[in-house]
Amino acid sequence: MFEVPKAEYETRLDALRKFMEGQRVKCFLLTNGNWFSYFTGFFYLVTERPAAMAITQDGIDFFGPVMEAAHLKTQTTLVDSVTTYLDYPGETHPAKVFAKWLKGLKPGTKVGTDGATSFSSYWGYKGPKWSELIPGTKFVAMGDSLYPMRQVKSINEQRLIRESIRWGDVAHTLLQKYTEPGLYDFEIAARASLEASMRAKMALGPRYKASRWGLVPVDAGFRGQVGEHSVYPHSISIERKIQKGDVLGSGASADIAGYNSEVERNMFVGRPDPKAERYHKLAVKMQDAALGALKPGGKCSDADKAVRNFAKNESLTGYLLHHSGHSIGLEGHEAPFLDVGDDTVVKPGMVLTVEPGVYVPKLGGFRHSDTVLVRNDSIEVMTHYPRDAKSLTVEA
Amino acid sequence: MFEVPKAEYETRLDALRKFMEGQRVKCFLLTNGNWFSYFTGFFYLVTERPAAMAITQDGIDFFGPVMEAAHLKTQTTLVDSVTTYLDYPGETHPAKVFAKWLKGLKPGTKVGTDGATSFSSYWGYKGPKWSELIPGTKFVAMGDSLYPMRQVKSINEQRLIRESIRWGDVAHTLLQKYTEPGLYDFEIAARASLEASMRAKMALGPRYKASRWGLVPVDAGFRGQVGEHSVYPHSISIERKIQKGDVLGSGASADIAGYNSEVERNMFVGRPDPKAERYHKLAVKMQDAALGALKPGGKCSDADKAVRNFAKNESLTGYLLHHSGHSIGLEGHEAPFLDVGDDTVVKPGMVLTVEPGVYVPKLGGFRHSDTVLVRNDSIEVMTHYPRDAKSLTVEA
Repeated sequence: MFEVPKAEYETRLDALRKFMEGQRVKCFLLTNGNWFSYFTGFFYLVTERPAAMAITQDGIDFFGPVMEAAHLKTQTTLVDSVTTYLDYPGETHPAKVFAKWLKGLKPGTKVGTDGATSFSSYWGYKGPKWSELIPGTKFVAMGDSLYPMRQVKSINEQRLIRESIRWGDVAHTLLQKYTEPGLYDFEIAARASLEASMRAKMALGPRYKASRWGLVPVDAGFRGQVGEHSVYPHSISIERKIQKGDVLGSGASADIAGYNSEVERNMFVGRPDPKAERYHKLAVKMQDAALGALKPGGKCSDADKAVRNFAKNESLTGYLLHHSGHSIGLEGHEAPFLDVGDDTVVKPGMVLTVEPGVYVPKLGGFRHSDTVLVRNDSIEVMTHYPRDAKSLTVEA
Repeated sequence: MFEVPKAEYETRLDALRKFMEGQRVKCFLLTNGNWFSYFTGFFYLVTERPAAMAITQDGIDFFGPVMEAAHLKTQTTLVDSVTTYLDYPGETHPAKVFAKWLKGLKPGTKVGTDGATSFSSYWGYKGPKWSELIPGTKFVAMGDSLYPMRQVKSINEQRLIRESIRWGDVAHTLLQKYTEPGLYDFEIAARASLEASMRAKMALGPRYKASRWGLVPVDAGFRGQVGEHSVYPHSISIERKIQKGDVLGSGASADIAGYNSEVERNMFVGRPDPKAERYHKLAVKMQDAALGALKPGGKCSDADKAVRNFAKNESLTGYLLHHSGHSIGLEGHEAPFLDVGDDTVVKPGMVLTVEPGVYVPKLGGFRHSDTVLVRNDSIEVMTHYPRDAKSLTVEA
């Protein structure tokens, strides 16, 4: 139940193959793990070892390290053949094995790719560009044209994201429950994440498991956005314990068949000072401005423009450190973006985060992120965590 | 104390600038976060938002999203100027801001890069290649020539990795302590990781914090390598609980100033069957063969060749799914590799994992990974976890 049905993968592959016909390419090469997952349901740990999938009109062929051969078959039945090498760099460089494999598929003189034109320089990998390996063939990055396929989420995807939200909300509830002065942020995060993961596993049953590597499948935390560090949206970590008076930035998500969601809040440790509470309220209103401007048939930029106008009217412009949201799905951030510069049309089925933030130096960061579904004639806020300061205040 | 001293960053930058002189480039462009960390000590969360550092003979200039401007200054004093944009894609595409910024640095007609020639297509980013943005300038990927700078670890780096090992060993001890039938692997992992992280934080003191985003700074786990899944070195996850009779693949590490280490074992839930115990012993002997062949002044391939010979003599060849190890440091895997195809000379100061594995279908995976330091005339095994079957058997 907590997976993408095979028929949907086939629909996705049909769309890719139609796209390939339009582009007059007989072979499309994927090397980004997200595309492996999207088209075939295969999730794997990316390392320096090169891996690729070739999609042709006839089938799907995988090239990669031998350690993934049997593993792949436990996850997907959509791949027709597997060609492996023992390891990198090997007696024969994997790039040469790759070249022989690809030539055998008679890919033609123009091959479409998901973005790469060589294997990624990652974790110590080095190797030639594909065009050097197969001189007669041109590799054309077409990922940008492919990416829009993922903008509108199918009913199945919406269901998976909704399930992710359900557990993200549980995790965030536990995070708040366990928050108190004198604890490290990671301590609260690990405790809440473990408990939420256990509850999810118990509820979802024996077929549920994480698709991506992480300590636990459901997680909530602060990412170092504590007190004076709450003004850094990507603070990563902080040395000190949480203390009374801290403004906290929090968030939660869950991995459901590889799909993500997002709920983020700002919390208060002990009764907030009036100035902080004022900015908190403004952040809520600013998010409402974004939500009010986001409409099916409108543009993604509308929400961000509404936020900028609101910020201007409230003299907050200098406190904005990022735009108002992004699409979400197999990746934590996806295009389109709720950004003044993104005029993508808002379409029913899109799943977006709405999360403008106010960052006041020496006072704190104030941001609430909710995940929303664009419906035919409205916006549904799928996350349900309260936003008012009272609900988000932890006794201290 | 748990950081790289400023003088060492200056030594690294001197080496880069000497390299640049030899390559006749006035400007070197970094976009990979690991290189930011290596040269300046700046750690940040990579997203779709483009970021770059330009190293010239005069200074270091950072280009990136405004949310990182103040955050960067909390982490490093080595960056001279910061140029920002609000967000991606923006009213003006960040690539244009980048082009203006870089032109202002008068980079010359040839710019060296850490590998990229455009910003990474990641989390929905798209943008032009740099050569299209600055037509008069050629961008030449030189990361492969730079990478060897990181092969030999300095005394400071060795100290940080040794500290990482210390906490990895603690985490692994707790992991084993908490392992029992009826628990999910992530449950044991989260519990052990949290406790080890708390102990590390208490011991290392107020200045210690994680450099990379993760739920906790010290972690141990099974990564899904449980029972029938222990034959997949990168299993990611498993649906079921641990049960009596399972062969487990385990591992631990800790983030110390961004440096990693590795200890991996295979464990038994209840007394192992004799066949499994036999392969366990062979895996230990195979690792000893690798350790015996690894010598300062020798080649990285020597260790892997010794493993292949051992496997051949013991009829294990078909059970090898990967090579015998890799360098480790800021990245979990780094070049060089203990691989038949890697003839890099083994030099004092290198830190490597030694971890050949035997994967027997339907029986289990048997792999022990230790982190070693190459000394002037010997190999020091820095990890201390026991490898014998008795020590690695959990009562059940």
